[in-house]
Amino acid sequence: MSVAKVRLFVDHPLGPEQTVPLERDQAHYLFGVMRLKPGDHVLLFDGQSGEWLAEVAQAGKRAGELHCLHQTKPLHLPPDLWLLFAPIKKARTDFIVEKAAEMGAARILPVQTDFTNSERVRADRLQKHAVEAAEQCGGTFVPKVEEMERLDRLISGWPQDRNLLFCDEARVGDRLMIPDATSAPWAILIGPEGGFSDAERKRLRNMPQTHVLSLGPRILRADTAAVAALTLWQSALGDWR
Amino acid sequence: MSVAKVRLFVDHPLGPEQTVPLERDQAHYLFGVMRLKPGDHVLLFDGQSGEWLAEVAQAGKRAGELHCLHQTKPLHLPPDLWLLFAPIKKARTDFIVEKAAEMGAARILPVQTDFTNSERVRADRLQKHAVEAAEQCGGTFVPKVEEMERLDRLISGWPQDRNLLFCDEARVGDRLMIPDATSAPWAILIGPEGGFSDAERKRLRNMPQTHVLSLGPRILRADTAAVAALTLWQSALGDWR
Repeated sequence: MSVAKVRLFVDHPLGPEQTVPLERDQAHYLFGVMRLKPGDHVLLFDGQSGEWLAEVAQAGKRAGELHCLHQTKPLHLPPDLWLLFAPIKKARTDFIVEKAAEMGAARILPVQTDFTNSERVRADRLQKHAVEAAEQCGGTFVPKVEEMERLDRLISGWPQDRNLLFCDEARVGDRLMIPDATSAPWAILIGPEGGFSDAERKRLRNMPQTHVLSLGPRILRADTAAVAALTLWQSALGDWR
Repeated sequence: MSVAKVRLFVDHPLGPEQTVPLERDQAHYLFGVMRLKPGDHVLLFDGQSGEWLAEVAQAGKRAGELHCLHQTKPLHLPPDLWLLFAPIKKARTDFIVEKAAEMGAARILPVQTDFTNSERVRADRLQKHAVEAAEQCGGTFVPKVEEMERLDRLISGWPQDRNLLFCDEARVGDRLMIPDATSAPWAILIGPEGGFSDAERKRLRNMPQTHVLSLGPRILRADTAAVAALTLWQSALGDWR
């Protein structure tokens, strides 16, 4: 018996006696990089069936097969919390996605605001960061990273019942306020560097779903603000309680 | 009159009618990169006198002089909070220092734990990240980044009156507890990837100054944990209240 050194997300159902074929990249990682051999153990999760201990059944350079042994963790779904953020420089955008997955956001939505510099994001590339973060943090769920959408369009179709925590950097120095616990769905909105436009700010503040959150007396970078807002939300309303 | 496009930390006293000579790097940045000209405005802070509006008096390629006009912000000192962290990969260590400055730590102490991989950190290089973060976040104070010290030595001489918030990743799933507000000095300790050793954990838990903090059901990376712990502390006991 070996201790599992690797924790892997697989896009394949897991269950008792289940056989899991590996993709080329995964086989390369497990057998080329991590040097696993038949009989070695791996932890797997598929985002739907919790975490499973599996053993290597076949190991090849470009393919391989794992065999599920038993469940090691039940599925833990994050709270129904979306993170909306305006993409910034590439490294910091990657960072926000990684942090959102670690912190337990259920869905990640890049939004284009009036002052967003970035015109495009590659959702598939960002999705990989979310997978890696989930593998690393011991979670059993991977948040979906959506394609970028314009903030005004997203607001126009905003769900009636979803609260929006609007992190408005113009409210520097205001008192922090998180509303009382509720089982309603939520979203957190983090602005771009340069902040929101006056039009956006006015529109957001006029939405009945909006709660404004101040993040202290200093102006935080977008990536810092994302972690800070997720922390406050998770500890007040989420699965850190 | 021009709007100040630049915010700069200077290691020189500021005050009414004060003249501030520029270092070579600063002159290059202001006049070479940002293309400021005599008469243009700059915001300055020295970590002790708040923020001042200054104008360019002399602009050269390798030197220059600024002239203080009037104070634009009073000095805002952060709470008496230290951040202790075990250095990790370079980019993430830089990140922790940047975040600690943004989040309002007063002093940043890299510590070497039993499982710390990094043997050396360059405190002078990290100090620059703290300065940049202070310039960017609108703060009027720059936390000092200390040279790395061994955690066991630091604990041996730990100040009697300084509370220690010990972020123990082994307490996954435990209930979050921050003790009641107090004016006592505090420190937050973030562990390395790989966590603390059993000996360290036992010793830390036995200190009367220690309060254990859990950061939710997922295992956070050290840089995420630093921002999350600083957020909880600042909102419960610090200057976000």
